[in-house]
Amino acid sequence: MARSIQSLERAAAMLRLLAGGERRLGLSEVAAALGLPKGTAHGILRTLQQEGFVEQDPASGRYQLGAELLRLGQSYLDVNELRARALVWTDDLARSSGESVHLGVLHQGGVLIVHHVFRPDDSRQVLEVGAMQPLHSTALGKVLAAFDPVAHAEAAEGGREAFTDRTVTGAAPFEQVLELTRARGWAADVEETWTGVASVAAPIHNGRRMPVGAVGVTGAVERVCEAGELRSRLVAAVRDCARAVSRDLGAGRF
Amino acid sequence: MARSIQSLERAAAMLRLLAGGERRLGLSEVAAALGLPKGTAHGILRTLQQEGFVEQDPASGRYQLGAELLRLGQSYLDVNELRARALVWTDDLARSSGESVHLGVLHQGGVLIVHHVFRPDDSRQVLEVGAMQPLHSTALGKVLAAFDPVAHAEAAEGGREAFTDRTVTGAAPFEQVLELTRARGWAADVEETWTGVASVAAPIHNGRRMPVGAVGVTGAVERVCEAGELRSRLVAAVRDCARAVSRDLGAGRF
Repeated sequence: MARSIQSLERAAAMLRLLAGGERRLGLSEVAAALGLPKGTAHGILRTLQQEGFVEQDPASGRYQLGAELLRLGQSYLDVNELRARALVWTDDLARSSGESVHLGVLHQGGVLIVHHVFRPDDSRQVLEVGAMQPLHSTALGKVLAAFDPVAHAEAAEGGREAFTDRTVTGAAPFEQVLELTRARGWAADVEETWTGVASVAAPIHNGRRMPVGAVGVTGAVERVCEAGELRSRLVAAVRDCARAVSRDLGAGRF
Repeated sequence: MARSIQSLERAAAMLRLLAGGERRLGLSEVAAALGLPKGTAHGILRTLQQEGFVEQDPASGRYQLGAELLRLGQSYLDVNELRARALVWTDDLARSSGESVHLGVLHQGGVLIVHHVFRPDDSRQVLEVGAMQPLHSTALGKVLAAFDPVAHAEAAEGGREAFTDRTVTGAAPFEQVLELTRARGWAADVEETWTGVASVAAPIHNGRRMPVGAVGVTGAVERVCEAGELRSRLVAAVRDCARAVSRDLGAGRF
């Protein structure tokens, strides 16, 4: 078994550091945050810069993430089979529901959005591809936690922050939510992550019956809910979409 | 001066390899393509996998790019000042022109699209953020090559492939195009990259008068051209947008 390579691990830690929080850091700050001698940190930063993963502001000398990451991230999307199979179905779902559609996969203890179809109206909307959502409070996250054992462990061990006063944070109530999700095959988030916003999501399985992602619809609670519950037509449309993508990925119908 | 780190350079080369061409490669193919012993290649791949930069298909054992690149690419966009300053202006440009708008920066001998506003109609469109465009034939690329000396050198030394029979490929004619671009302050691409598609772009400068990017409008040649030339109202709108973003970046008005 090959050993993992220390300089690579350190480089990855630097990129994660620059991706969160302050995002523009000087050499001393990077070295201190990772507990490295300045010379070591500089060698790694310099190589990352040379490869386009990091850029240095000429005026301040501070480092930030580089453009090569955007290009590689796009290539990741191009090669992502789940996303490719889901494109048409998620477009249809946005059209039929009139709401925005997100496709998410488990990544680093959260949901990584790999596709986002805008709500089909003329409003200004921010693309959320590449953004992360919490596992314990969003509909996409609950679906992954309910059906994927790895996601379940991460959600169970995670902090379960209360984003609103409706967020389920306790361990036992959270397990009940997941049991309900498994029993009915879909999950809801009614103002548990963002006030005024509700969503519904269903799991996508591949040809080996493994849960590989989740697809969901998100919108203003006034539009997508009725008497505090997700509209059943919306739930049906989301589950139809998830089944269609799963079949395209080779999952059986039964 | 710190030396660059070999294992990091090799890791970056692997990611570039997986981002182009075949995109799903076995260990032997990766090792052969980079001229590395299999054990060395495996150690790097394994560390990249552990950090989320590479994923291994459980069925075939082949490697492909990983989800962490998408997350980091999104963080790059979040921290990109040019893009942040341009958001409102490019939205306005798409609305006033009725066509799609692209914002591009120089990256690895081409134009990296860092923002894309869809044509404001209900048609299905593919987001091009993270995609690359050639320097020598697109309006964005010509603007960068005309105003940025580094881009100029890369375009002059590059292959200048003929994408259509209108592409300017010769060295002297290409320099004339750049001279015209500098003289009038904008560049056009009338079916030089894609048949049936025309675009117009203008440079964005920062507070130190450095060209930091280009913004342009792209659409069907029937809509954006008149008698073989870009409509002057469209040219004016693109240049207005470029000036507005430049001012927001601190460029003087004179």
